[in-house]
Amino acid sequence: MLYILDLSGIIVFAITGSLVARKKQLDIFGVFVIAFVTAVGGGTLRDVILGTTPVFWVRDPIYVLFVLIGVVLTVILVRFKLLPHRPLLLADAFGLSLFTVIGTQAALNANVHWLIAIMMGVISSVAGGMVRDVLSDEIPLVLRKEIYATASLCGAVAYISLLQYGFSTVAIIVSMTITLGLRLTAIWRGWSLPTNLIGFSEN
Amino acid sequence: MLYILDLSGIIVFAITGSLVARKKQLDIFGVFVIAFVTAVGGGTLRDVILGTTPVFWVRDPIYVLFVLIGVVLTVILVRFKLLPHRPLLLADAFGLSLFTVIGTQAALNANVHWLIAIMMGVISSVAGGMVRDVLSDEIPLVLRKEIYATASLCGAVAYISLLQYGFSTVAIIVSMTITLGLRLTAIWRGWSLPTNLIGFSEN
Amino acid sequence: MLYILDLSGIIVFAITGSLVARKKQLDIFGVFVIAFVTAVGGGTLRDVILGTTPVFWVRDPIYVLFVLIGVVLTVILVRFKLLPHRPLLLADAFGLSLFTVIGTQAALNANVHWLIAIMMGVISSVAGGMVRDVLSDEIPLVLRKEIYATASLCGAVAYISLLQYGFSTVAIIVSMTITLGLRLTAIWRGWSLPTNLIGFSEN
Repeated sequence: MLYILDLSGIIVFAITGSLVARKKQLDIFGVFVIAFVTAVGGGTLRDVILGTTPVFWVRDPIYVLFVLIGVVLTVILVRFKLLPHRPLLLADAFGLSLFTVIGTQAALNANVHWLIAIMMGVISSVAGGMVRDVLSDEIPLVLRKEIYATASLCGAVAYISLLQYGFSTVAIIVSMTITLGLRLTAIWRGWSLPTNLIGFSEN
Repeated sequence: MLYILDLSGIIVFAITGSLVARKKQLDIFGVFVIAFVTAVGGGTLRDVILGTTPVFWVRDPIYVLFVLIGVVLTVILVRFKLLPHRPLLLADAFGLSLFTVIGTQAALNANVHWLIAIMMGVISSVAGGMVRDVLSDEIPLVLRKEIYATASLCGAVAYISLLQYGFSTVAIIVSMTITLGLRLTAIWRGWSLPTNLIGFSEN
Repeated sequence: MLYILDLSGIIVFAITGSLVARKKQLDIFGVFVIAFVTAVGGGTLRDVILGTTPVFWVRDPIYVLFVLIGVVLTVILVRFKLLPHRPLLLADAFGLSLFTVIGTQAALNANVHWLIAIMMGVISSVAGGMVRDVLSDEIPLVLRKEIYATASLCGAVAYISLLQYGFSTVAIIVSMTITLGLRLTAIWRGWSLPTNLIGFSEN
């Protein structure tokens, strides 16, 4: 069940990665690389930091295939102008909420401190997008605006808290609802985190 | 035999790295860092992803010395204006074809799926140059144009295919010939992969 | 003793990271990420390359708390305009000299060649700042000017040399004095490494 959700998350992130690569006029190899990095980069960094190597997509190469599916889907959808902005934002928020749960759980499986598990949930869901932006020669979007990582953080905290009471399925559903809800509300209302907290306005 | 070729590949990539660093007006420490990253970055990423740590140059520090030799050689060659463009492109293509074989074989030694082994061949040969470009604040060249990673990909596929029939030396020679041939033909004819595959022209 | 110094080094680097993030107008999450990467990035890269995973801050989550303390301190200090330039440069040089010793020792604990141990001392102390600059879309400062990594290199060499004679505490003090002295003298006299060593002026 989580596995099928995971693979659909891979496709979603591969699509958003492909779209960024497209804007940067990369060739088809570059598109695949950016899609791959966006989709599996966060989980790869998590596995490397935790030392659970070889990393997940080496242990289970089907992830590579699903990135390919995501790239092909993007090519088709763009050709037929079937990529409306809103469903994409929704899908991306869904991927975010999903990877938060999966990343947190993967860290718990490695028996780490709960604080580290929360960080790994956030890293799994946002680091791929950060590397995508660095490769595209941009300051990572996630560092600059909007409630993105923060939504993941709240979801990870909720997941860990509920898990203590043994409600595994409930924990997944509530965590994903919180991340998804926060992220979508942030998009809808144009929320951002303050950037002048440490005195930008004074400069 | 492969080991000697490997060390000469290190020198070649250290030279191309030093030349990029030179254009960016880095100091001598920066030149060494970029040369080092270009020469061993791909193999390091491969080892970290596969979990075959400590990485290869920690197990065998002679690689560090060969990066140093590459940097010193660059200083001498530039001083005496002995760095013609063409032999350098040839040497770089040679390094690419070599690192593809070495990277694919290193992955096979770690008992991974053939699809992953091919990816590791490509990562070993192109990731160093990608990190070099990121540190130089550029979009990696390899993502933007020319048949570079694609030549490595074809070489890796050829290597794996031939290896199945047990022809180890033949596999090395054919794989390197394919990568080298594709890369040199691409340079000679000005081939690039299409960048408008997913609708750039429509923007 | 070293542990307490280590944690104070974490705070110092978290502060310098937060200040860079502030200039780039990142949101509060971005500030924490840059502070975290600056403070623990070098040691993380060292642990991943050496294969001593999970990395140090996963094994001992108190490091995460000290990054948080560094960020909060920055917010307070900036609010009350208590961040004079000079003490900060001094503190940063202190962190550099400290992380050089700690990184070199961590590598020696992993039984690597002395050449690799020296490299790990340098990587531990400068790589965090490099990743900070890459995430901020800049060419890493350390690659471009000033005696920074070079000071760390001299400190690491001194540490390893003295350790051979069994003077562990002396080695720490002399190494830190050399790194700190070189770095502060470089700031004071405006020293930089030559950038035209490989013929920049000829271009």
